[in-house]
Amino acid sequence: MGCLKVSSKSSPASVAGAIAGMIKDGACVEIQSVGAGAVNQAVKAIAISRGFLAPIGIEIACVPSFADIVIDGEYRTAIRFSVEPRYLHGTATTHGAQYADNGHLASN
Amino acid sequence: MGCLKVSSKSSPASVAGAIAGMIKDGACVEIQSVGAGAVNQAVKAIAISRGFLAPIGIEIACVPSFADIVIDGEYRTAIRFSVEPRYLHGTATTHGAQYADNGHLASN
Repeated sequence: MGCLKVSSKSSPASVAGAIAGMIKDGACVEIQSVGAGAVNQAVKAIAISRGFLAPIGIEIACVPSFADIVIDGEYRTAIRFSVEPRYLHGTATTHGAQYADNGHLASN
Repeated sequence: MGCLKVSSKSSPASVAGAIAGMIKDGACVEIQSVGAGAVNQAVKAIAISRGFLAPIGIEIACVPSFADIVIDGEYRTAIRFSVEPRYLHGTATTHGAQYADNGHLASN
């Protein structure tokens, strides 16, 4: 699993490319951001990466959570996004394929 | 489907309560936010609502996208989060139950 640290100065398009690359390789992606500006860039990156992945049939979803981290000796609360492929509307993604297959077996 | 408009002054805990209530009722939730501060509050609200829903066995994921909206005659780009229950680690959520059932049928 890859971990991307996104700041308020990160380019959403660049981060999106990194997300798309890792998801294509079958990895789940963790994104960490501290502060409203960084969280905003991370969310934009995830939205942009959807556009990179949709044409090859991969849909993604993200799950946000809090994480206590230490930066320069100070405690901060970071937002972590776990980005993963998801099963949607009968389209099988890498991780959802098993459920689609099961559905076929059950209906045969 | 409910639509929540979140601003930078919205209370994440309150929004989280609204999200959890709608998800529990089986609805999907759309959250709209404009600006980094608003996006940050929305993400915090989603993270908090996970804590409300986890004890009753519901996991959620969100899918961010861009939306062009008009505020006071000006075009702005909003971030929209589609929040929905998801199937996870063999735990059947409301929407994932059918796949879990199919899995059982296939393996019997």
